[in-house]
Amino acid sequence: MSDQHVPVARWARPPEGPALVLLDQTRLPAEEAELVCADVPALVAAIRSLAVRGAPLLGIAGAYGVALAAARGDTVAEAARLLAEARPTAVNLAYGVRRAERAYDGAVARGADPAEAAAAALAEAEDLHREDAEASDRMAGHGLALLEELLPTGDLRLLTHCNTGRLVSGGHGTAFAVVRAAHRAGRLRQLWVDETRPLLQGARLTAYEAAREAMPYSVLADNAAGSLFAAGQVDAVLIGADRIAADGSVANKVGSYPLAVLARHHRVPFLVVAPVTTVDPETPDGAAIVVEQRDAREVTELPSPAAGTTGGVPVAPSGSAAYNPAFDVTPPGLVSALVTERGVVSPVTENGIQELCSMSLSGESRSGNGMMNS
Amino acid sequence: MSDQHVPVARWARPPEGPALVLLDQTRLPAEEAELVCADVPALVAAIRSLAVRGAPLLGIAGAYGVALAAARGDTVAEAARLLAEARPTAVNLAYGVRRAERAYDGAVARGADPAEAAAAALAEAEDLHREDAEASDRMAGHGLALLEELLPTGDLRLLTHCNTGRLVSGGHGTAFAVVRAAHRAGRLRQLWVDETRPLLQGARLTAYEAAREAMPYSVLADNAAGSLFAAGQVDAVLIGADRIAADGSVANKVGSYPLAVLARHHRVPFLVVAPVTTVDPETPDGAAIVVEQRDAREVTELPSPAAGTTGGVPVAPSGSAAYNPAFDVTPPGLVSALVTERGVVSPVTENGIQELCSMSLSGESRSGNGMMNS
Repeated sequence: MSDQHVPVARWARPPEGPALVLLDQTRLPAEEAELVCADVPALVAAIRSLAVRGAPLLGIAGAYGVALAAARGDTVAEAARLLAEARPTAVNLAYGVRRAERAYDGAVARGADPAEAAAAALAEAEDLHREDAEASDRMAGHGLALLEELLPTGDLRLLTHCNTGRLVSGGHGTAFAVVRAAHRAGRLRQLWVDETRPLLQGARLTAYEAAREAMPYSVLADNAAGSLFAAGQVDAVLIGADRIAADGSVANKVGSYPLAVLARHHRVPFLVVAPVTTVDPETPDGAAIVVEQRDAREVTELPSPAAGTTGGVPVAPSGSAAYNPAFDVTPPGLVSALVTERGVVSPVTENGIQELCSMSLSGESRSGNGMMNS
Repeated sequence: MSDQHVPVARWARPPEGPALVLLDQTRLPAEEAELVCADVPALVAAIRSLAVRGAPLLGIAGAYGVALAAARGDTVAEAARLLAEARPTAVNLAYGVRRAERAYDGAVARGADPAEAAAAALAEAEDLHREDAEASDRMAGHGLALLEELLPTGDLRLLTHCNTGRLVSGGHGTAFAVVRAAHRAGRLRQLWVDETRPLLQGARLTAYEAAREAMPYSVLADNAAGSLFAAGQVDAVLIGADRIAADGSVANKVGSYPLAVLARHHRVPFLVVAPVTTVDPETPDGAAIVVEQRDAREVTELPSPAAGTTGGVPVAPSGSAAYNPAFDVTPPGLVSALVTERGVVSPVTENGIQELCSMSLSGESRSGNGMMNS
């Protein structure tokens, strides 16, 4: 957080704190307001209301939440349980909570006093925060190098979907971090921002992030992406991932798969940018990914623009059914490359994914059929 | 209009009229309200506010408008000019106005008194209305026969985009008329209704029409169509057309082309249903079709659910640019068949289109490589 932005999440020490201070994402892009969570129930409420969201960021927030409970002298185990259950399907949230809780418990077991144990929990949260920021930077570097290799000349017109920037991360995000790197390298001519129905994370949040970075960008209805491809106006697609199966199938925000099919039809690179932790070796393939069906009202009603969540203003006739999957699955054959903090996998194959997962961070090397990492 | 629906457009004779009574589409689906247009300025306002919309229906409304001016003793030429300019890009509107005006002028030239000339204008409007309803019925028949040929067994899961039913037509519409025929034939298992951003004609209007016909239907964010194809849940796609070039390229509501690419990728029939008047021989090919760019606010703001038009509730950061084409162009190679009131063209080629246009209505026959008409 070296720039002028309101930090997405920051730890406040006394006299302001102890507190976790969040950028309230429900009020974006209209307003950059800070939300001070001075105890765990306040943080749980912030997680539930989507004031803080995005897989890696939820993990960081959860870890800070444990540190907060410890600093206040609350029961840490109880706080950890409340936090992990705030959004039960968010794997990263439980992961971050567990890391901080283990650090606390370990310190206690080693005979630390409560203040020292609280400091251990906070240090772990800060480690997680920093690690995530570093992973963002590495993904950005690998992704930019890949773009330079695939598209060595000319300005780039990049298309992205949903929100994958600093609002979901301890750093600059995943796919958006690569876009940002291209922008800072002077290569970005245009960022095409899919609005990303039904919850409009693109129009609300990615456009906000692009504006803050002074990128040239335009928002479009998801329907209009096809016209851009047909007009030769897209040089590459960059998206994040919610989960990657062992065979390289990519679950991501609904609307990603149609972009992959369009990209293939138009021979445009389709790049997935995600940390290695997104790979789930327990999920063998795309068919094994269970797709969450969300509330019909996200489609049959208009979302509240302030909250970006389930709406309240009816659009479709009352009683209309809706098909509202939260994400879709892109088979590995349609993914040109997977960009991670450990390097690039291309083509995306089961072997390439395995090699990636077994690689240590320091042991970055070629993967798949040998696309260079850099 | 043989059923219990509020008619989309009806001529009211004295004592209620003379008036053109419209179903106010800006109030759908919440309310079925009639809007009485007792003079041409009221009708012009209704056209401008989109209370009445849809290419063929605008032509019918324009013709009735001329009849209304004549019946009231207003200056017909002036009324015709006002009506034709109410939405200057709507070719069908000018066409309908001109037909009624010519009928009126012809009657005057033949020595008719004002009442007789007004009756001639009204008769022409009623002819246009009836012709359009008949064309709908013929398209429905040809389209159903084609579905029976392509998909002879099993229940059908059909996907459609935008609004193509009785709300745009003197009859039951174009693509939606085929869906309705399949439903009445007991073949429709599911209608998938794309919400059709940015103006949500699918969620608002097609869902309303599907509900009124008691069809099994679900609304989806346009992004979710890809998941349906991937799951094998779409047996055919049916859309309308705004304009068809001489080479068979189809301009239609934005989002149609991505569906065509998805349909091809999944080997699902992609059917375009439109009257022959939609073919524009002056437009040689898809590249010659000028795509209208619409107001950025349709994307950067949420539409007013009542009006379905440019919104007012900001979503994207203020000052965001938007790419907002009104329609896109699908090349003929991605269109499995073109269904018209004169029969079916498949494959869609320049020769097939030419043959179709030169055919008389009574001379229905094979076209293209010989798909049967019925």
